[in-house]
Formats: sequence, structure tokens, C-alpha cells
Amino acid sequence: MSKVVAFGEIMLRLSTERHLRFAQAKTLEACYGGGEFNVAVSLANYGIASEFVTRVPNNEIGACAVQEMRKMNVGSQHVVLGGERLGIYFLETGAGVRGSNVVYDRAHSAMSTLEKGTIDWKKALEGATWFHWSGITPALSENAAEACLEAIQAASELGLTISCDLNYRSKLWQYGKNPSEVMPELLKYCHVILGDIDTAFFMLGKPKVAPDYNAIDQLPKWYNELLDYIPNLKVAATTLRCSVNASHQRIGGLLFDGKKIYQAAVREVTPVIDRVGSGDAFMGGLIYGLLQYPNDYQKTIAFATAACCLKHTIAGDYNLATLKEVENSLDGDSSGLVSR
Amino acid sequence: MSKVVAFGEIMLRLSTERHLRFAQAKTLEACYGGGEFNVAVSLANYGIASEFVTRVPNNEIGACAVQEMRKMNVGSQHVVLGGERLGIYFLETGAGVRGSNVVYDRAHSAMSTLEKGTIDWKKALEGATWFHWSGITPALSENAAEACLEAIQAASELGLTISCDLNYRSKLWQYGKNPSEVMPELLKYCHVILGDIDTAFFMLGKPKVAPDYNAIDQLPKWYNELLDYIPNLKVAATTLRCSVNASHQRIGGLLFDGKKIYQAAVREVTPVIDRVGSGDAFMGGLIYGLLQYPNDYQKTIAFATAACCLKHTIAGDYNLATLKEVENSLDGDSSGLVSR
Amino acid sequence: MSKVVAFGEIMLRLSTERHLRFAQAKTLEACYGGGEFNVAVSLANYGIASEFVTRVPNNEIGACAVQEMRKMNVGSQHVVLGGERLGIYFLETGAGVRGSNVVYDRAHSAMSTLEKGTIDWKKALEGATWFHWSGITPALSENAAEACLEAIQAASELGLTISCDLNYRSKLWQYGKNPSEVMPELLKYCHVILGDIDTAFFMLGKPKVAPDYNAIDQLPKWYNELLDYIPNLKVAATTLRCSVNASHQRIGGLLFDGKKIYQAAVREVTPVIDRVGSGDAFMGGLIYGLLQYPNDYQKTIAFATAACCLKHTIAGDYNLATLKEVENSLDGDSSGLVSR
Amino acid sequence: MSKVVAFGEIMLRLSTERHLRFAQAKTLEACYGGGEFNVAVSLANYGIASEFVTRVPNNEIGACAVQEMRKMNVGSQHVVLGGERLGIYFLETGAGVRGSNVVYDRAHSAMSTLEKGTIDWKKALEGATWFHWSGITPALSENAAEACLEAIQAASELGLTISCDLNYRSKLWQYGKNPSEVMPELLKYCHVILGDIDTAFFMLGKPKVAPDYNAIDQLPKWYNELLDYIPNLKVAATTLRCSVNASHQRIGGLLFDGKKIYQAAVREVTPVIDRVGSGDAFMGGLIYGLLQYPNDYQKTIAFATAACCLKHTIAGDYNLATLKEVENSLDGDSSGLVSR
Amino acid sequence: MSKVVAFGEIMLRLSTERHLRFAQAKTLEACYGGGEFNVAVSLANYGIASEFVTRVPNNEIGACAVQEMRKMNVGSQHVVLGGERLGIYFLETGAGVRGSNVVYDRAHSAMSTLEKGTIDWKKALEGATWFHWSGITPALSENAAEACLEAIQAASELGLTISCDLNYRSKLWQYGKNPSEVMPELLKYCHVILGDIDTAFFMLGKPKVAPDYNAIDQLPKWYNELLDYIPNLKVAATTLRCSVNASHQRIGGLLFDGKKIYQAAVREVTPVIDRVGSGDAFMGGLIYGLLQYPNDYQKTIAFATAACCLKHTIAGDYNLATLKEVENSLDGDSSGLVSR
Amino acid sequence: MSKVVAFGEIMLRLSTERHLRFAQAKTLEACYGGGEFNVAVSLANYGIASEFVTRVPNNEIGACAVQEMRKMNVGSQHVVLGGERLGIYFLETGAGVRGSNVVYDRAHSAMSTLEKGTIDWKKALEGATWFHWSGITPALSENAAEACLEAIQAASELGLTISCDLNYRSKLWQYGKNPSEVMPELLKYCHVILGDIDTAFFMLGKPKVAPDYNAIDQLPKWYNELLDYIPNLKVAATTLRCSVNASHQRIGGLLFDGKKIYQAAVREVTPVIDRVGSGDAFMGGLIYGLLQYPNDYQKTIAFATAACCLKHTIAGDYNLATLKEVENSLDGDSSGLVSR
Repeated sequence: MSKVVAFGEIMLRLSTERHLRFAQAKTLEACYGGGEFNVAVSLANYGIASEFVTRVPNNEIGACAVQEMRKMNVGSQHVVLGGERLGIYFLETGAGVRGSNVVYDRAHSAMSTLEKGTIDWKKALEGATWFHWSGITPALSENAAEACLEAIQAASELGLTISCDLNYRSKLWQYGKNPSEVMPELLKYCHVILGDIDTAFFMLGKPKVAPDYNAIDQLPKWYNELLDYIPNLKVAATTLRCSVNASHQRIGGLLFDGKKIYQAAVREVTPVIDRVGSGDAFMGGLIYGLLQYPNDYQKTIAFATAACCLKHTIAGDYNLATLKEVENSLDGDSSGLVSR
Repeated sequence: MSKVVAFGEIMLRLSTERHLRFAQAKTLEACYGGGEFNVAVSLANYGIASEFVTRVPNNEIGACAVQEMRKMNVGSQHVVLGGERLGIYFLETGAGVRGSNVVYDRAHSAMSTLEKGTIDWKKALEGATWFHWSGITPALSENAAEACLEAIQAASELGLTISCDLNYRSKLWQYGKNPSEVMPELLKYCHVILGDIDTAFFMLGKPKVAPDYNAIDQLPKWYNELLDYIPNLKVAATTLRCSVNASHQRIGGLLFDGKKIYQAAVREVTPVIDRVGSGDAFMGGLIYGLLQYPNDYQKTIAFATAACCLKHTIAGDYNLATLKEVENSLDGDSSGLVSR
Repeated sequence: MSKVVAFGEIMLRLSTERHLRFAQAKTLEACYGGGEFNVAVSLANYGIASEFVTRVPNNEIGACAVQEMRKMNVGSQHVVLGGERLGIYFLETGAGVRGSNVVYDRAHSAMSTLEKGTIDWKKALEGATWFHWSGITPALSENAAEACLEAIQAASELGLTISCDLNYRSKLWQYGKNPSEVMPELLKYCHVILGDIDTAFFMLGKPKVAPDYNAIDQLPKWYNELLDYIPNLKVAATTLRCSVNASHQRIGGLLFDGKKIYQAAVREVTPVIDRVGSGDAFMGGLIYGLLQYPNDYQKTIAFATAACCLKHTIAGDYNLATLKEVENSLDGDSSGLVSR
Repeated sequence: MSKVVAFGEIMLRLSTERHLRFAQAKTLEACYGGGEFNVAVSLANYGIASEFVTRVPNNEIGACAVQEMRKMNVGSQHVVLGGERLGIYFLETGAGVRGSNVVYDRAHSAMSTLEKGTIDWKKALEGATWFHWSGITPALSENAAEACLEAIQAASELGLTISCDLNYRSKLWQYGKNPSEVMPELLKYCHVILGDIDTAFFMLGKPKVAPDYNAIDQLPKWYNELLDYIPNLKVAATTLRCSVNASHQRIGGLLFDGKKIYQAAVREVTPVIDRVGSGDAFMGGLIYGLLQYPNDYQKTIAFATAACCLKHTIAGDYNLATLKEVENSLDGDSSGLVSR
Repeated sequence: MSKVVAFGEIMLRLSTERHLRFAQAKTLEACYGGGEFNVAVSLANYGIASEFVTRVPNNEIGACAVQEMRKMNVGSQHVVLGGERLGIYFLETGAGVRGSNVVYDRAHSAMSTLEKGTIDWKKALEGATWFHWSGITPALSENAAEACLEAIQAASELGLTISCDLNYRSKLWQYGKNPSEVMPELLKYCHVILGDIDTAFFMLGKPKVAPDYNAIDQLPKWYNELLDYIPNLKVAATTLRCSVNASHQRIGGLLFDGKKIYQAAVREVTPVIDRVGSGDAFMGGLIYGLLQYPNDYQKTIAFATAACCLKHTIAGDYNLATLKEVENSLDGDSSGLVSR
Repeated sequence: MSKVVAFGEIMLRLSTERHLRFAQAKTLEACYGGGEFNVAVSLANYGIASEFVTRVPNNEIGACAVQEMRKMNVGSQHVVLGGERLGIYFLETGAGVRGSNVVYDRAHSAMSTLEKGTIDWKKALEGATWFHWSGITPALSENAAEACLEAIQAASELGLTISCDLNYRSKLWQYGKNPSEVMPELLKYCHVILGDIDTAFFMLGKPKVAPDYNAIDQLPKWYNELLDYIPNLKVAATTLRCSVNASHQRIGGLLFDGKKIYQAAVREVTPVIDRVGSGDAFMGGLIYGLLQYPNDYQKTIAFATAACCLKHTIAGDYNLATLKEVENSLDGDSSGLVSR
């Protein structure tokens, strides 16, 4: 039985309703999410045991975050209480020619001030088979980067499969270190990564590259170079996104298994209800595919891409598409008929 | 003066707001509707006297359903009170690649437990010129099927024009009979039917057929076969729907008058606000056209198709497009200018 | 330092939520707006000092309108209190094949009963460099037309640049005079006008014309004729709108500087959140461009068009796009990426 | 079989939600009501046939008002279409020490510009046994006062019982006439009036009086004087209201039948959900009692008072308490148990 | 370590907002609750391990109910999927003189059609120390009564403490049996019951009694008689409720331990936000007290009463007051200061 | 002409709707407020020129706070942009026996990290006659305390009247200093203070005292002692609050002018819509009274108390009662009649 433990920050998300601008909002919709938590929710939805490890403040807002984990069937046994505040992000959902806008208010959060040694990883990883983290945690603070390394090393020692969503955010990484000073040490334990090739190279401190994703034949070259830097790497995947406008995306995906490239067909995704978290939905689908279709990378990348597409139609941070809905959508059917 | 009497179930519809999934909903929008009632509302909106006959429980929820009839200018003089509950259906409105989802909770409803002999059809049909029913009522229960036959026979004896929307729903028909055991007897009194050719053949217990609606020339053959089975049939019509995705439909229509096929041009319908009830809007437009443009089948099918398209932009079960709006849209203009 | 004074009516706008029809609405969204006010808001958003002159009733509803001016950083020092009521308009926002619907309830408003001599224009225009009005004010009533002329003449004497958005609305002009009896006298002081060539000719009482906006070469002929009628005219501009449906518009723009035509590329605008006020957003962008890019008509028309496009994604009467957002959009990028 | 025809204005009511002030409201709740219409709704709720005669504009807002009549089971066959606008009133619901605030925007309404001769009263009163009007209509305009007289005279000629709620509103009566110049002629046909004694004297142009409602013995003297002025008067009633604060009222009632005073015990009404229309609820209860308990004035005044109390707990303009609820409350039981 | 297992029905509750009547509601608030589930939530809130056993349909609505259990930290491992529908109840929350109104739509629910033998009680009660049921389950159907007996007997065999809230609802018990034919057999295993003495006598088929709760001295007589009928009974408790009106309750409590009466002081509870479930809050507090203050019946009844009072201020079916809030309120302090 | 400058923090307030608990909230109401800002709003509402000085982050959330200032007619010319975040507080509004609950998330706010020297007080106080601050600012951080002292000294040098609301909050003062180490230096410049006598003694580092506010005769003794410590003190005032429960308060006030005590009668305030900010409303009323009724301390304390009472009926942080409403309420009339 697989069990996935994800580690990262859960935030209070405050979004305006119906495409209103911040200045127009009298009410904000409150939900809870974060890159790694969203992956855990996806997996729980698909029936995979999942656990989320994080730190939340010991107040009513932190309690709401834990309640959300329970509600979504994500284990919260190893959540640590402490710190001053739950990270917040404000979201103004765009439409058409106007993009969405995120205002971060996550500095000084319980997670960003988490210190190495706080979590008993032996216990937290007991029974787990997979560990997932993302490039957001080491981007928060030096503390968080160290805590992340500690977690990864513990997972490695226990022989877990380790996955990482690179998730580069230029507005983070404000504490005086560049990704290339931090990420190589963390990535070297990873077996699965999700992210653009150029982001991976950038985080590894390699010269800037500009792969052409339409030239499939040339991609293995880049990925093989990645393999040189990340010795444990088994699978690297990328979401291919073309943003026609904020309400219309074209989504595809590709996966490299060390030998060849597997591609999922590009789909039209319109209208977009909420694209935040769609990358996390891809990641959740990727892990699911690798666990459930171990010899079928084609199905795996198709599943991840279908999950990502469905997430765009669902409000909130995480993907609520069911396993059956993703499976029904694997063949690219998007006709959206009424089920009755 | 025409007067249409429709007979069927009115339900409480509980839908999530703004494309939320059921699991996200803290509030549900409550409205009232049902296939045959929606037809009655369309006709009332166009200025045709219409009456709805049904059975609702003698409680506050049943009273709300009757209030809705009055509000929409649909006669409710012959509604019967009784039974345990009003049927309910839950609706989660999809978007893009995610289809809408209906959860029925209509078993044991006042309508499904209605017994033959409960309604005084002599009185209920007094002054009426047209009787409308659909394939949903005989699908509810054996009782309801018998009550439906009773109504149709009364209408037939009184010389009314009789129309039926075949409305096949596989989730119904759970009481041990197949459509082909029930529908032929009911359909034989009909003058007007709406539905796909294959659905009609299926309900009549005929071998499975697969007409190609693009091959217009071949359609009369099928329709003529239908005429053999339904001797009174004067007009058969079909909505042509291509579902690009849940938010984008292509809608056309065709009508056979016993001699030739009349077609309405296919239109792009996007975005879709609410497609539930769009078939009923087509049916309402069809009856209106047959009543008001008696010699103009081309205009009739254009009217029905335009009504159906407009319904997709209107929330709720029934079509609130006005006569003027449908007429303005007959020529296929969809430019949607601001009227000011 | 530029300072723009706009003069016109501010109304209470009551709109149904989420595309509901009037008959479905239990709540109405209340906001405040009006053609000329919307222009003042746009300019204030871009950092240009702007002032709005109008008359509102001395009651709580009038006070709300003034509060809105302050909130949007538009000067309200010269607003006059008086009259019976604030004008109202009801708005039902369409979608797809169903157009939006406006019901005016603005007769007998404080602005339409404003009499010449009520406003001390010397004071109101002190420090101003630009005066903006539109064809709506003289369409309200004879009083309002006279008050408008008084304002224009005062602005002219003080040497201000004068702009007019022709804004022809056939549902107004109900007081017994045709535009051609009123507008020529008002337009003759103008330096900048926004409107279709045929509307301008109509308002000037000239024979009906039907320019082909695709035949750019032929447009200068028409504009030169306009110059004959409006001696002070320096710049004439037009929004080019193709309405695919209520949720999908194609927007371009052109500007004539007395010598040549400058064009902004046509953009796809879909979905439309709210198109009311998009013409005012164009006007605001036009004034901004003329003020800030005095020698760059190409950039000016691009700015006005980009502002107009962005407005379609913003709920309410006026444009809340920031200067930076319009500038980022100048090159036609509509990819709507998330800013995070 | 009794049938009551009420004549007056129906308005669009726009109220802020949850005790917000106008300046805080982004949405307004829209409902329809008016003194005389509210009476008609009460009677329809109690099972008495009722009809409302008024004039509404021929636009979507007027259509909503008519839809409301149908929904509430009030006849609308004789509603006249015409005029410029539907009257509006804005309501800010107070709480505790802060009173509610009404801003009228009803000038120039379809009803206030209604001219004598517009309504075919012969037809409108066909089959009716009772005619109800109030002091609001003659307060609107000279036109409306004349139209009101015409209606009353027609009712009188047809032998209907005529009732009037005096409803003095100092913010109305703005057209140059005092109540005492208009009301005596209208009141002289009345059989039933509701209002304070001092209001009645004031409207009749009599010297100011100040009855002490605690000195029951002295009240017949005043009422007998009223009888002198209003020869047809059979029953005069008064709501006794003590306003502890906006959320706490004490409500009693008394009735004079030409011989003696009947009193309903005073009740505590707290909290108040919505007190607007509670006088109309009293009037509706009074007519119901006079019709259904013809020999029981004690029960009649108790019914009217109980109806008034219940209305305070119901949002909107009119009383939605059912006949059974009022009857259950006749004995003064206010324990408000859950019915389950 | 205590662990409580509760068994009963969880329903979808659909309530109107802000005291609206059913006929006014366009949206209904959806939450999940039921007498026994509410007890389980209370206990989970206080830190007691609790588990809920029920049957829900295998559809999206049933899944929402299970999600609610998880969210509230109530175990759902032994929930059985099956049946046609989730029971529903509609709630119209009263105010002041108008009582709340419940419309049940729970017939044919998954729980009411549950058959004996469906639940593996050995497993479901593993590790449990307490079993709670209520008089609602045997009131649903013969099936449910049998399933309830089976559960109680299993709990008894395993030596659990058994508690019952009598919860008599006259609208239930529609399947042909009286409580006195069913309840004695079920009650005989109970150690703790909550309910009025007269209800207990009625359910046991004893002659009607009318105890005076103000005559404390006389109560032991009645309770001792109960002990004769229910041999295992250790504790009997009663909520004392005086309903001033729907928004104002006076709440006290008393407990008999087989020897003497313990009383909690009566408190004023006003305003009432939601009184549904306040009895369940009392029951939850009672079990908590008996578990945590085993030798302190005075504190136990004070805790139960304080919990009940606090529930009246909390929307929804179950009590969300925290352990600390109830404890702070034990001394009767109701000053409701801001905590900041 | 008076002009008041207030200095302090403006926060984003996020409150649950309709008495929901945090765990139930899907949406939060967003408004902006803070002790000193609320005072500035009160004064602006009464027609006194007021200006607010603070620091907000240079992002969209900070911009919303500034927009709120403009909307409320409070000057924002000297607001400084900078810092990481806007302070937030979460509010759960209690009812009856359940108190409201505030969760602060204001650490690291733009205001708490403001450094001395950032604001040009010469400019900011130009034209001002009064400076207001509160005990919250020095409670935030050492930085903020120093910046506060700088402001007070500048105001003192310019000869402004200086007022302080002591506003002791035990959850603040977390930076290592006690009030008594900081406040004496700040208070010594003050002319007007609002707060309990015991709080004042505590902040001044004096021995704990427990004045009996019912023993009016003994109060001058305490106040005279305060005068010894605060040499410039002219007026000391106190709100007298008795909290019956969270929805029912009794509010009085008293003022000492250095010679005698002036008292405002105690009023019943029920229901309470929102008590947060009611102390600020008192402070605003106190300053208004001192400015407008300079020789009438009795009227001043009555005005402050009436303002405080009215605030309890108004949602949000600041008082929206108008000057006229407070004046009408001066005599203690709380009958809350409808104004129409």
C-alpha cells in the first residue's frame, strides 16, 4: 500500500468573488491551500493514503487549516503547532485579457520560521512510501530550507521515493540566497521532478537554456544533462501551458523516463474557473500515475495532464476532480455532457 | 384561442452556485422546474394560455412549487395535493471540460405515487386545445405510467392535439418495465414528438438504428418508418446538439412534417450559463411555432432552435426569453448588443 | 500639471447578479457611474488630477454618489446639491447570444433638472486644463442642454482643451429637440471628439453617411468634412467594435489627427465581464494619451484601445485597470498570466 | 363569497441587508410592496379572494411588480400599464437605538400620474364586495386624489363596503393641498377606517385633539364625533404602538363599533425583523376579522393585532403569516416553539 | 481512554437565511446534522474520541455527509453505504413571536431502510467505552427500530455504558407502532437517559404524569419509579426550557443520580441564533461531564446546561462551543465580553 | 477652524458573517479600521476636518486602506508607503452568552515597523489644531513607541491640543517593555485622556486602584491624583460599560474637567450589531463635544455617550451615525422610530 507524505506550507487564501478587483471587494472567499498540500488532497481524492506535514499557529486560524486537512481526508497527525501566524495570500481572479493577481502576505508565517529539528521525521514518515516537497519551502527562509533538507534526508534514509515540484517563484527567495546555492543539495535526493527544463537548469546553477518543446527530438539531450546533475532522477515531467488569455489555456504535458519522451495531447481549457493550483493538480496526477500505472508512462502523463485540465474548472486551490472523472477524461474527451 | 395543458412532475432543484462542487457548497440555490412544467412556462411567456397539472405534497415545499406556477403565469387550478414529498434534484453546474452533474432524489415523490383516477381530466382539460406530456412521467413508476395513459386517452377523446418530448433518462425506468413495454401505447395517440430518431425507435421497441443527421436526404426514410408506428403523428422534430464542452454547445434543429425535412442553422452557444431545460425550451418553441405559424414549418423550427439557444444563457430550469427576444433572434443574429 | 474637469450625470446603477434576468433577482448590485464620471475615474486612476461636476439630490442616495467620487479620488468640490432624485438605471447583464438590457429610470433626475447659472464655472474650472462633456447631457432635457452649453463656453473662454464623447442614445432626446438642433452649437467649441463618423454627421444634421472603416484610405475624406463643421477640432477618434456575441467582442480603435489615420490592432475580448462603460474607458485612455504622449498618436490610440479592452473584464461602470496594466497591455499581449 | 379590491401604489423597495447603512451597501434587496397591496396580500394569504388595481410602467420593472401580484395570489387583471416609472423607496433597517430610515423616490411614478378615467371601475369592481384604499394615494398628487375619489364613488354606487387606512405621511402631500382639503370628501363614503383619532381629526380639518388611549372610557366620545363627520362609518380601529427601540415594540389594538371599545392585549414584539408594513398587516387582519367573524369584534381586533405582531418577524413589505399562525397566536401565545 | 460511539441518522439540513420564510428563499443553507451525530461532534470538540455509525447513500450527497464527519473529527470508519437517499429536513428559523418551522423529508432515507445485520457491531464498537442512541431511530421505521435494538444489545454485551436521549417527535412514529410497543425493550439496557419525566413514562407505556419541576422535592418519587422500569439506569437528566419567545429562552437543567437531584441555575438565553440541536448539546455536555467529572454531578449538570445555552448562539445543528468556552461559562457568566 | 490629525494603525478586518464561528466561514467580510482611524472617521462624519497619518505597505491591500480613508472623507496626504504588510485582525462576532473573539495577525505590520523620522511631522501637522493618538501604537513595538513620542512632541511644540485613548490591550505589549516604562513619557503631553482610572494608574506605573464608579463623590480624588502625574491634563473621561451579554450592553459615560464630574445617563443598548469600535466612537464624540460645545461638559459627555451607543448598532469598525442622529439621541431617546 502506497502512502504519500507531503511537506510544505498551508496558507489561508483570500480571494475576491466573481472577478472583482481588490478595491471592489466587501467580502473575501476564504479557503486553505498550498502547493504541497494540494498534491496531498489530489492523492487522497484518488484513494491514495496521504499525510501532510506542516506547522500552523496555535490559534483559531491554524485550527481551521487543520480542519481542512481532515475534511479532505489528508492525515494531519504530524502537524506541529507554533509560530506567530498562518501565511496568507490574496487572490484577484482575472478574466480574458486581465491576468489574475496574487498578493503574498506569508512572511513570518509558522512554516517560514520552522526550525530544523522541530519535526520528528522518523515518526512522521512511518509507513510512508513516498515523500513530496516543492521549491517553495526552501524559497521561504533559510530556516525552512534547512528544515526541508532535514526532511528530504530522512526520507532518503528510509528509502522513500522522493518527488519535487520545482515551483520557482521570483517573489520569494528574498532571504539572501539564490536557488542555485540551495536547491542542488536538495534535489540530489529526488527521483521525480516536475518543472521546465530551463527552471531546473537555473535552480541547479547551470547556464541559461531555452529548450524548444516543439522539437521533441532535442529534449532528451537536455533531460540527460539533468540526469547528470541529479543522480537519482528517474522521471522528469513538464506541464506545457500556452496562455491564450486568463480564461483560455492550452494544456499539454510531457514526461521523460530516462530513455524517451512521452507526450499528452494539448487540450483547449476554456473557460478557466480557477487556474491557481493547476500545476499541483498535474503533480498529484503524476504521482498517482507513477504509483498506479508503474509501467505505463504514456498513461501516467495523460492522467497528469487530464487532472491539470480539470482543475482549471474547479474553484479553490486544490483539485476536486474524482478519480473517475480524470479517468473518463484520459482519452481527451472534453464534451462536458450532463450526467443525469 | 389556444390553451395548452401540460402534465408531469415539478421538482425542487437545488444547485451549487458559481460552478462549485457539491463538497464545496454551503448554500444551494433553490428553484422549481421539470420538463413539462418548463414547456408550460415557455408558452405562458409567449402569451399562450397554459396550465400545469401535477401532484405536490400538502406542505410548505409543495406550496412553494404552486407559488412558482402562479408567478410564471401558468395555471395551477388542477394541481392535486397529496403524497409524501416533492421530488428533488441536486445540480452541480459544470464548466469547460467538466460536465454538469445531476443527483436525483425524486423517488417516492408525490407525482411518482400518483394513482390513475386521482385527476378529473374532464375538468382539467376543459377549454384546452393541446395536451403535452413527456417520457419522464411513465419512467417514474408503474402508477405514473398508468396515470399518464389515462391523461393521454382523455385528451385524445376530447380531440386535443397531443405532443410528447421523448426525454429518455437511463437513470429512471427503475420499476421493472422497459420503455418498449410502456411507451408504444402512450405514443400512439401523439401528433407531435420531439426526440432523436434512435430514441424513438428504442422506445417503440424497434431495432437499434443510427441515423446520420448530416445526411438529410436519408432522414425521411426513418421518419416515415416512425409514421408507421405512430399513426397520428404529424410532426417529428429533433434538437441537434454538438457539445464542444460544457460551456460551449452547437445547436441546430430539424423538423419533419410527413413530407420533408426543415432545418434550422447551427449556432455557436458560448458561454453556457445553464443548459438544463434547454430541450424543454426547444419543445416550448416548437409548440408555439406550430400554433402561431401553422403553415410555416421553417419558421417553426427556427423559433424552437432560437428558443433553445437563448435558454442556455438563462439560469434556472425554464426559459425566460421573451417572445420578442426569440423573434429578434430568428434570423440567427447572436451579436448580443446592449439594449439601451 | 494637467487637471481635467468632467461634467455630466452620475447615476445609481442597479444590476442583477450572475446574468440573472430582472424577474429572477432578489438582490441588485448597487454602484454609481455615468459616462463622464467614468472618464474622470479613469484619469484619476492613471494619476491625472480630475474633478467631476454634477448635481445630486440632498439625500442619502446623493451622498453615496459623492462618497463614490471621493473613494475613486475624483474631486467633488463643485458638486451641487438639489433636485428631487438621483437618476437610476437598471442593468441585466447578458451572456452569449443574449444581449444586456438597460432600463432607464433617469427622468426628473437632479442633473436633468439642473438650470443654467447654478454652477459657478469660474470657480469650478479654476486650475483646470481640460474640460470633458458628452452627448448624454444635452440629450436629457432642454435645461441640461443649456447648462452644458454654459459650461462649454466657460471652458472655452478659459482656454481649456475641450473633449466630447458623442454618446448617442436613441432612448434619450425625448424633450422635443433633435440632436441636430442642439449639438452643432455645443460641438463647435470642441478640440477632441470620440464617436463614429456617421453619428457625428447625424448630430451635426448632415446627410446620412456610411463610412467603411476597413477602407482606411477613404476615412480622411470624412474626417476632413467634420473639420469643416467643427473648426477647433484637432483629434477625432473612434472605437471599432465587432460584437461576436454578448460575451465576445472584437475591439480596435482609430484616430485622425487632421492629417492621417492611426490605428490600434483589433483584439479578441472574451469573456466579457461587463461591457458597460467600455466606451468611457476608451475616452479616458484617449485623454490620457493626448496628455501624456502629446506627439505620439499611435501610442495614444493604442492606449485608449487597450484601456477599453481591459474594461470589459472589470465589473461596474468605470475602468479600474491601473496605468501599469494598460501600459503592459499596449503591445497587444493578452496572455493574462498570474502575477505572483 | 367575499372579494376585496384594493387600490393604490405598488413600489420597488430597495433595502440594505443586515442593518447596513446606505453608505455600506454594495447590494440592495429588491422586493415589491405598498400599503394597499400589502393588505391585498394578507387577505389572499388568509384565503380571501383579492384583487389589486394600480398602474405600473410598461417595462421590465413594472412587469416584475405584476409578477409579484400573481405570485402572492392577488388578482392583477385590472392593472393598467403606462406612465414613466415605478415608484421606489430605499430602506435602511435600523436596530436598537437607531431607527429605520426611508428615502422616497416615488415622485413621477406611474401611479402618481394616473388620471381619472383611466380605469374601468365597473369592470374592475365586478364581483367585489369590499373596496380598500388608503390616505397615501390622495397624498401623491392631485391626479391621484381625483382618481381615488372616482374609485371610491364607483365602489359606493356598487354598494361595496369601503375601508380606508388613514396612513398619514408628512413627507407626501407636497402638491399644494392639505389633507383637510381632500380627505373629507373621500372619507365620507367609508365604512371602516384605521388610524389614530388625532390623525382622523387632522385629516378632516378638525381642531387638534390628543386622546389618551389609556383612558378607554373617554375614547367613545372622540369616536362618536368621528361618526358625525363620516356618516357611513361602522367601525374605527387603531393600532397602539409603543416603540421601546427599533428592535422592540409593544403592540396593542382597539376597535370601536359605534357603541363600545374592544381591546386587544398589548404584546412584546422583540426582536423586530422588519416593521415596515406592520400597519398594513393590522389592516389586513381587521378586514379579515370583519368578514369572517362578523359578530365578534373582540376576536376581530385580536386577529388584527396578532397579525400585526407576526408581521414584525417577517422580512419584506407584506405579511406572510398564515391564517393558522395568526389563529394560533390569537390567545397571545408568543412562545415561538419549534414546529417539528 | 474513553471512546464514544453514537448511532443514528445524519441528515442534510436546508435552512432559509436570515429568518426568511420558505416562500421567500432563493437560496438555502446546507449543513449536515442529526441528534446523535450532534452529540458525537460535541464530544469530539471537547477532546473525547468519538465515532459515528450510520448509513448514507452511495452518492455525492452521502459523501458530503461523511466529509462533514471527518471535518468535525468524528470517526466515520463504520459508516455503511447504501439506500436510496439521505434524509433531508427543511428549516425556517423563527424570531420573536414566530416559532421555527421544520418540514421533514426523511422518509425512505438510507438510515430508515437500514436492516438489522448490516453493521458489524463487533468491529464498530471495538475500543469503545460508551454507546449513545436516541429515540429518533426507533421512530423512523420498524427496520430501524430492530437495527437499533441489535446495536444496543451488542453494546450491552460488550459492557459499554449506554445513553439515550428520548427525543420524542410526534411527526415520526408513523409506521404503525407506538413508542410504548418499542421503547421499553430498548431502554432497559440504558444507564443514562435524557428527557422529561412525562416523556419517559409515555414511552414506557405508563400512565400519563405531570411532574412539577419547580417542586424539586417531589421529583425523586418519579425518578425512582423510572428506576423500577429501567433497571440499569444510573443517571436521568432533563433540560428545563422556558420559551419566552423564539428568540428568548430560559434554560436550566437537572440530574438525578438515583439518590438526589442536582440542579443548574436557569439562564437567560437571548437572542437565539439557532436553537435546533441545543438538546443534543445538552446531551453531549452530559456525557462529557459523566466521563470527566465522575464524582461531581453538580459540575456535570452545570456543564451540560452551559453547553446547551452556548449552542443557542451558534448556527447549524451541532455545538461548536469549545471546551474552554463551556468551562468559562460554568459559573453562569454570560457577559459575553470581547476576547482581544 | 478645527482640524484633527490622528496617528495610528489602520488594519484589514476580516469578520465572519451572521455570527458564524471561524470554522464555519467560507467568506469573510473585509473592512478597514483601527482605533485612531475610527476617531478620525467619526470627526469627518460630524463635519470636522480630519487627517489620518499612518504607514501602509505599497501593495494593493495598502491601497485599499488609503481608498477607505478617502471614501470616509479623512485626509490621507501624509500616509507613508512602506513595510511588508498591512496588519490584520480576524473577528468572530458573538451573540448572547457567547462573546466576540478577536484573533490578531498584526505583527510585522507596516505601522509596527515604522521608524522614528519617517514622517515629516512639520508638514503633517500643518494647519492642525488637535492631535490624537492611543495606547495601541506604543504597544506594538519599540519602534512604534518611539515614533509615537516623536509625533506627540511635534504636536506639543506646535501647540496642538493632544488627546489619548488609553486603550490597554494585554495581547499587545509583547516587545519586552511594560506600559509603565513607556506611557508616562507619552502621556505627560496630553490634555485629554479617555480610559478607566485603574488603567491610567496602571499605565503610569502607580499602585493598583479600584475606583467605584457608582460612588461619584469619590472619583475626583482619583482624577486629581491623575492630574498630578499628567500636568497638562484638562479633561479625563471614561466609558461606563456593563455587559449584560454580548448582545446587550448598558452604556454610560463620565467626564472630569479638573473640578467636577459630569455624567451621562446609562442606556440600554440591545441588540448589539457590532460593539468593536464603540470606544472609538465615544472618543470621537468626546473630541467633537470639546471642540463644538467648549463650555458645556455636560453636553459633551452626553454626545460622546450617545455616539458610543449608536455605534453598537452599526456594522464595521467605525461609527457611521450622522451628527444629526447623535444630536437627536442626546436626550436619551432610543425609540428608534422609522423616519419616513
